[in-house]
Amino acid sequence: MIRLIQIDPSDNVAIVTENAAKGMDLEGIVLLQDIPQGHKVALKNLQKGDEVIRYGVTLGYLLEDIEVGSWINETMLALPDLPSLDSLTYAQGEAVVLPKPSITTFEGFDNGPDLYAGTRNLLAITTTVQCVSGVVNQLVGRIRSTLLPKYPNVDEVVAINHAYGCGVAINAPDAVIPIRSIRNIMRNPNFGGEIMVVGLGCEKLTVDKLLPPEEINAENVLMLQDYQGYAAMMEALLKMAETKLEALNRRKRTTLPLSKLCIGMQCGGSDAFSGITANPSAGYASDLLVSGGATVMFSEVTEVRDGVHLLAYRCVDKEARDKLVAEIGWYDAYLAKGEVDRSANPTPGNKKGGLSNIVEKAMGSIVKSGRAPIVEVLGPGELPTKKGLIFAATPASDIVCGPSQLASGIALQVFMTGRGTPYGLAEAPVIKVCSRNAMQEQWPDLIDLNAGGIATGEESVQEVGKRLFELILDVASGKKKPYAEQLKLTNFLCFFNPAPIT
Amino acid sequence: MIRLIQIDPSDNVAIVTENAAKGMDLEGIVLLQDIPQGHKVALKNLQKGDEVIRYGVTLGYLLEDIEVGSWINETMLALPDLPSLDSLTYAQGEAVVLPKPSITTFEGFDNGPDLYAGTRNLLAITTTVQCVSGVVNQLVGRIRSTLLPKYPNVDEVVAINHAYGCGVAINAPDAVIPIRSIRNIMRNPNFGGEIMVVGLGCEKLTVDKLLPPEEINAENVLMLQDYQGYAAMMEALLKMAETKLEALNRRKRTTLPLSKLCIGMQCGGSDAFSGITANPSAGYASDLLVSGGATVMFSEVTEVRDGVHLLAYRCVDKEARDKLVAEIGWYDAYLAKGEVDRSANPTPGNKKGGLSNIVEKAMGSIVKSGRAPIVEVLGPGELPTKKGLIFAATPASDIVCGPSQLASGIALQVFMTGRGTPYGLAEAPVIKVCSRNAMQEQWPDLIDLNAGGIATGEESVQEVGKRLFELILDVASGKKKPYAEQLKLTNFLCFFNPAPIT
Repeated sequence: MIRLIQIDPSDNVAIVTENAAKGMDLEGIVLLQDIPQGHKVALKNLQKGDEVIRYGVTLGYLLEDIEVGSWINETMLALPDLPSLDSLTYAQGEAVVLPKPSITTFEGFDNGPDLYAGTRNLLAITTTVQCVSGVVNQLVGRIRSTLLPKYPNVDEVVAINHAYGCGVAINAPDAVIPIRSIRNIMRNPNFGGEIMVVGLGCEKLTVDKLLPPEEINAENVLMLQDYQGYAAMMEALLKMAETKLEALNRRKRTTLPLSKLCIGMQCGGSDAFSGITANPSAGYASDLLVSGGATVMFSEVTEVRDGVHLLAYRCVDKEARDKLVAEIGWYDAYLAKGEVDRSANPTPGNKKGGLSNIVEKAMGSIVKSGRAPIVEVLGPGELPTKKGLIFAATPASDIVCGPSQLASGIALQVFMTGRGTPYGLAEAPVIKVCSRNAMQEQWPDLIDLNAGGIATGEESVQEVGKRLFELILDVASGKKKPYAEQLKLTNFLCFFNPAPIT
Repeated sequence: MIRLIQIDPSDNVAIVTENAAKGMDLEGIVLLQDIPQGHKVALKNLQKGDEVIRYGVTLGYLLEDIEVGSWINETMLALPDLPSLDSLTYAQGEAVVLPKPSITTFEGFDNGPDLYAGTRNLLAITTTVQCVSGVVNQLVGRIRSTLLPKYPNVDEVVAINHAYGCGVAINAPDAVIPIRSIRNIMRNPNFGGEIMVVGLGCEKLTVDKLLPPEEINAENVLMLQDYQGYAAMMEALLKMAETKLEALNRRKRTTLPLSKLCIGMQCGGSDAFSGITANPSAGYASDLLVSGGATVMFSEVTEVRDGVHLLAYRCVDKEARDKLVAEIGWYDAYLAKGEVDRSANPTPGNKKGGLSNIVEKAMGSIVKSGRAPIVEVLGPGELPTKKGLIFAATPASDIVCGPSQLASGIALQVFMTGRGTPYGLAEAPVIKVCSRNAMQEQWPDLIDLNAGGIATGEESVQEVGKRLFELILDVASGKKKPYAEQLKLTNFLCFFNPAPIT
């Protein structure tokens, strides 16, 4: 049965839950055109210049008069002004009462006091520079075939390859972002504190930019130019890896409080259902986690830009609000240098899925953060200092947000999608949640949880959110593997480098 | 025996061919300090503000008085002003007489009239967006294990994975660079004209930006969102790959004129010897190739910036000169936006190797282009329209220059190194040439040709250049495999994207 979904009582549009034909009467609204699934229909007559309102928010201003029952799509709206970053109100969200989780522990790999725990036990081989990636890829193959079988408690070996390290303006102001991302990803909880760095010897990203002096030694760092030929370097690398594998193999899962868990939330390939099914249920799962003491990061600057006042309002203190303003202001300037703005964000798939512009996408994106107060705001790749809900100000690009959140320390990621993506990470398990029943039917062996029942009225946001919360803990505890992990579908690491290539 | 090498009679510095001790008398110059291999020694007393001259060019101005026999390093020089891009003289290089090659054919995979030939026969699977790379990597593994053995004339299967395609400002002015790079790399001569594109379905880099309408069909393009689940998409992908493999397997090497060969020159991890051994012999090999009708590309904007007047002088016409000025001017502005300039180029390894600054590095870099006139200048990833010596204006970063040259159509790359790098490409064989005997001794199973004998006086530039020319033809003809190809050391593709991430 085709339904209309109106989110806020003040909305003057609703979306259709299925493809709907011209002439249909949906809850008293007669459709004047065929309207695709997820797209908006006008609930009243509107005039050129009128606000189009969804989520109780102005998505834009009509470019022409339209009648009740008309299809409203991306060609018919002018974007509202960008919300100002001046004088944003903060610390108004403390009174929020979050739901209590029924489970408050998980089975993780403890990393000691003050550190988050791992959800997987991985040997990570970090490179200082792209030049060495060919050797490191061969090394990973050798480790998989000859060493890993001897260390059954180690789940995998992963190469932290990246495009940074040389041929870059290493002293440019913005170079701090890729450098700290690489420095911090080595500390990801899934890597168990074992440091294995492979460098070349003449690169710009010198090891002292990545490690403190006491960790720069032959146990942790190997430079290829120090070895006489390929065979010798491969032998030394295998020996180094074996030492690390021995240490990692001694790790065991133990029962830990949720305060030891740090996860990330991301969405990609969104549609108009994302904001009413998958993302709000992720938000409810986030509330359960945060309420239980866990840390949850959400990100994607261009997708929150139009709701920055809503995020500022939830910041717990001036420090978090000021950092939010600084990070988002930096991103505005970054986009302006490239002669674009936040309107460059939506994709053809977003638009096909009914998202008319970045305001509508943003409102649907922010709900994945639930209702918890924001305790801290991080720049891309920065490490958190607080527990709770954190805004990590990364690009919205899936393949850049993922590595940035890994650098900030997530041990698991939840990924909401409307259109579908086979996205995965080698460094942390990724749970994929879809927004529509049709997506689940299309990709039954890629989607881990379907939130589509919310749109059809079969489930509530809370019910799906609770299922997702339980799945997160099962995956974190190693009891379940998401499809991307089972199929070994992993995207390579694209760290955010806004500084020049030389 | 330690020697001093002075390049131009007007030079007031020379470099030492080995580590040299304080007090040594080298050809009448008594050293006042220990001087490391490849570093500069003053040939006369010089005063603060005096020019330091090497290659007959001002490397910089002294920051202090120094005496004859003193070590001159990067801390002692102020950089000269950036050469102006205004009113550069051109078309003065036509009178150059190039050496004649003794061989004028090679054994390549013909791609038909007006197209360059392949040096390898590869199945390339191009992705529209990074989201699909996990699936494509699994696909490549499946093709290697199950299909490739059935098609013995096909050398390899390569995934054209990249960080572009979505989460990017696709309409930003500078987005033309990554888009054309991906569009053009599909036409690389080593891929035999077979098009296999894997996309997702909701990405910004839509297939119409990569292929003309007549090539957008089910034979060439597969979108993952069109398939019901992972198993179905993998089955369809394998079927598609098999059709392409059948076509590629029918290709055979034939004897072709050198005009069918297009190669690239690049240097990385340079030292002070690069400019007197490896790079000039590459330049001589380039002259032999161009003289025989082949196309040779050289690149690396920041490494030619200080010699732009020398390149302009060699441009054959106003069109090439104007394009040179436009590309280099664009790069100046790009660096300025990131608050850096061409001085951000040299690496710690360069400096350790004796290269004091970008002027000295540039003079040593340009000589790899030999003496031929420059017939055309390309932007990063553009396709050539002329045969002969071409300046392809890419970043100097090895890992960005390589993919850019592949997009411009090189079927083989020659890579000169002083400090050593295991760099390689999956898409074309890479021949590595080192600048010093010590490097050859250090990496005997990674360096394909040693130009170090030029520094010790054992060989001439012409002799090494001729050996390199012959090696290039042997590798192009499939008679030899360089070490990186034998060891399967390949760097991933980092296409140049100066436009914003969203």
